[in-house]
Amino acid sequence: MESRRTVAPGPGKGAQTRARIVAVAAEAFARDGFDALSLRDLAGRAGLTHAGLKHHFATKEALLLEVLDERDRSDSEAFALWPHRRSGREVLRWAVEIVSRNTTQPGTASLYARLSGEAGDRHHPAHPHFFQRYRRLVAIIEAAFQEEAAQLPAHLAPRTAARQFVALMDGLQVQWLLDPDDVDMVAQLTAYLAGIGISIDDTKDRTTEEAPAR
Amino acid sequence: MESRRTVAPGPGKGAQTRARIVAVAAEAFARDGFDALSLRDLAGRAGLTHAGLKHHFATKEALLLEVLDERDRSDSEAFALWPHRRSGREVLRWAVEIVSRNTTQPGTASLYARLSGEAGDRHHPAHPHFFQRYRRLVAIIEAAFQEEAAQLPAHLAPRTAARQFVALMDGLQVQWLLDPDDVDMVAQLTAYLAGIGISIDDTKDRTTEEAPAR
Repeated sequence: MESRRTVAPGPGKGAQTRARIVAVAAEAFARDGFDALSLRDLAGRAGLTHAGLKHHFATKEALLLEVLDERDRSDSEAFALWPHRRSGREVLRWAVEIVSRNTTQPGTASLYARLSGEAGDRHHPAHPHFFQRYRRLVAIIEAAFQEEAAQLPAHLAPRTAARQFVALMDGLQVQWLLDPDDVDMVAQLTAYLAGIGISIDDTKDRTTEEAPAR
Repeated sequence: MESRRTVAPGPGKGAQTRARIVAVAAEAFARDGFDALSLRDLAGRAGLTHAGLKHHFATKEALLLEVLDERDRSDSEAFALWPHRRSGREVLRWAVEIVSRNTTQPGTASLYARLSGEAGDRHHPAHPHFFQRYRRLVAIIEAAFQEEAAQLPAHLAPRTAARQFVALMDGLQVQWLLDPDDVDMVAQLTAYLAGIGISIDDTKDRTTEEAPAR
């Protein structure tokens, strides 16, 4: 962090330029992938010279990590806040909503699918990012299942259900990216949850209050 | 296929050299990844000049596809044969055994995880390979669940179970690659199957025949 500030010409203009580069790169990576783009291409799209972009990001990997961090920042805040403020079912519904949102962003989904696969390599620049991301995500989903433990089948530990649910999110995404017409990720996740006793249909919450007795 | 024969100097020596290149590349990709290696590196490891290797494989992508096809060939034969020869439970047990084998080959698992992610892009050279691979794999697992349909929960269609099971294989692999000490893929898949009424414990088959009545 400190080193970034020393190279940028101050928090004002430099920070704005950085933010613009990150926004441009996020869109470009999502649409065209990571390999297909050079730092030079990205500089052009951000209206900078190659040297101007390198002043902010020395390598394409450094820029990618900033894109990932930036995209996770809002999700992370939600991750951190939701479990304390919402029921387990609502956290699970929110996770399914993120998957639903991903179906409108196949480029970003593809970038994540690819990176989460290659980041298993300890030497990959995104390894620490993904390692922490999965630890956090599994912990949040586990807490959600823990809250709904009374609904779960007797033999299914919340942690096991959490690993399965997160694995389904990733694995279904691989199938959906390859065969989008034949795979409905949201329906699949909803079916999995229903199969272990958890309905995330939000009309159910209201039904108990609103349905008139006949 | 025909064009390969016309560039190779005949089915004898040329085919042997091709096979050696593919074997060397399979090991190298699995250990060092796809990006880290150049065709020149691979030529050196196979005891060939760069030009000598390019005589057989013009690009690294072409060589990768041959590695994937070669590795799938034996699995494919098994895929094609098993469902007709074995029970659904046995096919599922065999799928779990493949996952178990993968835990001893993290480099190959990582290459597959990464490629299956990026192959969602229609323009990726491995797209047709992975598209067909998943169609076939899901169909085989679906047939296995179909055979065991009497065990499945009433609301779980064999095709849905198949998509879930294949997704778990891929998604658990992502988590395992990132965090191998904390993720047991085989235990997770076995637990999933047990949760939907299917035990793949092979001692069960014998128990009914061998267990003495007390």
